[in-house]
Amino acid sequence: VQAFYTSRLVPIRPITAGAEVIAEPDRSIEARARARQSILTKPAGSLGRLEDLACWLAARLGDVAPDMPRSEIFVFAADHGVAARGVSAYPQSVTEQMVHNFTRGGAAINVLARLADARIEVVDVGVASNEPTPAGAREARLGRGTRDLSRESAMTAAQVAQAFEIGARCVEESYSRGARLLVAGEMGIGNTTAAACLICAFTGANPSDVVGRGTGIDDPVLALKRAVVASALQRMQVDAKSAPLGVLAEVGGFELAAITGLYLAAAKRGVPVVLDGYLSAAAALTAVAIEPHSRDWMLASHLSTELGHAIALRALELEPLLDLKLRLGEGTGAALSLQIARAALALHREMATFAQAGVSGPAEAGA
Amino acid sequence: VQAFYTSRLVPIRPITAGAEVIAEPDRSIEARARARQSILTKPAGSLGRLEDLACWLAARLGDVAPDMPRSEIFVFAADHGVAARGVSAYPQSVTEQMVHNFTRGGAAINVLARLADARIEVVDVGVASNEPTPAGAREARLGRGTRDLSRESAMTAAQVAQAFEIGARCVEESYSRGARLLVAGEMGIGNTTAAACLICAFTGANPSDVVGRGTGIDDPVLALKRAVVASALQRMQVDAKSAPLGVLAEVGGFELAAITGLYLAAAKRGVPVVLDGYLSAAAALTAVAIEPHSRDWMLASHLSTELGHAIALRALELEPLLDLKLRLGEGTGAALSLQIARAALALHREMATFAQAGVSGPAEAGA
Repeated sequence: VQAFYTSRLVPIRPITAGAEVIAEPDRSIEARARARQSILTKPAGSLGRLEDLACWLAARLGDVAPDMPRSEIFVFAADHGVAARGVSAYPQSVTEQMVHNFTRGGAAINVLARLADARIEVVDVGVASNEPTPAGAREARLGRGTRDLSRESAMTAAQVAQAFEIGARCVEESYSRGARLLVAGEMGIGNTTAAACLICAFTGANPSDVVGRGTGIDDPVLALKRAVVASALQRMQVDAKSAPLGVLAEVGGFELAAITGLYLAAAKRGVPVVLDGYLSAAAALTAVAIEPHSRDWMLASHLSTELGHAIALRALELEPLLDLKLRLGEGTGAALSLQIARAALALHREMATFAQAGVSGPAEAGA
Repeated sequence: VQAFYTSRLVPIRPITAGAEVIAEPDRSIEARARARQSILTKPAGSLGRLEDLACWLAARLGDVAPDMPRSEIFVFAADHGVAARGVSAYPQSVTEQMVHNFTRGGAAINVLARLADARIEVVDVGVASNEPTPAGAREARLGRGTRDLSRESAMTAAQVAQAFEIGARCVEESYSRGARLLVAGEMGIGNTTAAACLICAFTGANPSDVVGRGTGIDDPVLALKRAVVASALQRMQVDAKSAPLGVLAEVGGFELAAITGLYLAAAKRGVPVVLDGYLSAAAALTAVAIEPHSRDWMLASHLSTELGHAIALRALELEPLLDLKLRLGEGTGAALSLQIARAALALHREMATFAQAGVSGPAEAGA
């Protein structure tokens, strides 16, 4: 393991023993980045969260004043057995239709990926279809949708392990292409139901505070969705603290498991990830339940309007950058935040220092 | 006046009689843009404020699905007589030093202008210096700083009128270059004191709720600054409602007046403006006090941490897009928001419709 990590471009130090080694951000680089911020031509702290973000990225990219890293977006698509319960405003066929839309570049995440100059890859981890995965998407189906989490375990332990491998492979392949900042998005009719189960399980929150309207369900469907989540949580005889993988298998989904695997693999690789919205937070909570230090590599992009997202972010102790009332998923909030990251790093790298610009600092004012 | 306006590319309809004609956003285009949002491949409303922003811009750019407009940033620099009272953490000479920094491209606003692909122009409307305005900035000095607003009227009525003309000239020149979205930024040691006076005067708020730390003053200086603002408001025998120009002359500043003039001229031209932070809000309140409908052309980019900015935005009834704890000014928050505007318009223009993508809408689900 040591030899593997020491061959990386970014120096990292293992902080846990064994095979599951989460990388550690470089705190000395973070301190030097912070010092750089204090000599740039602006009142100290006046760029607020852009300063924090630049220093956060510096520590994780292993460079006091890094360029904007190459970024990649993986959109994991899968179907959910629980959709048969009628928990979504859309028919299940929309998952497959949207995979086609992603491959043709017509979805919101495609537009934002182009703007952010980020490579995008669509990964079919289990769309319920008799048709093959469309050209332009990666075929990695773990089933034709999960089983109905309200009645039985959504996935087998083997499926969860396979999903983790898929997520990890995305990290390794993107790393070898030079990507140093990753976004995981998702598409799956019914997946806010699975995510709500995970958020409830890992935060202890009540379904009435966590189950929201997803794609836009009305009050009767919302009541049904809450009942479905509550009964799934009751059915499941797994302790979230001691057996997070069991929880994921019971009430998760293929895309949720793949994203969890991607977050864990990225934290081991020392590659920061930008979280998206509700689904992403559910996967992040799962990853952190498995490996608490994986949180050190997570940046929260935005606060979604989906009920319970704020609860999930608070449990993760992450502060979202944006609050634009988004609730689309796909990775859209994260992709938008790449623009903020780019700006934060450009300011950090390109602004003149007081000395370079011949500008007096506040000390000279005696104030 | 009619002939002048009918020669414009963007159709506008005057809503007030006389020489001061504020343009009206095209509500029919806004409705068509809203209809377009409803057929894009996403749950209705799921792009939240990005949808609103795209429709807001569509109505003001006269196009149902506009490209990102050419954007320009004007940074108005001036000094303030009140700086002699010791209300800032920085010496007055920093204003001139920062003008040099702007012309050399080393300030935060330069970096963000480059990222936003926006032309930037620095306008010296009254730096207190014996040296000429540096090459690369526009010389438009109305004095060597204003007079001390805590003791006498900061500006004459003639100076205010000249500042308005400068702001209007920036609008006309940028318009002729094809700019259809404008940002006004500023630099001026002591200018948060003047802005606080304007915000208090136009909102009726108390100095203790509006006077903040500016560039980073300590508690004793903050107490002094509050006393200075309170005494200036007491000295001034002008009614804010009936004589907003009088208020501006009494307690404003050259850059504040130029920005107010720019906002008014832009609203007459039918060009939307992106507000920045505290100074920008003070100028916006002044413009709206003079011409209430000028508010229709204002987009609030961000909520600053400067005390009182939230009060000013509430009085303007504008909801900021971002909250990144910025308090730098220069136009930085507005320039950053140009990236959000670009994303909103790209999504609006480039996303596939349900019909184009062959994706089922929610109606087909019967939900």
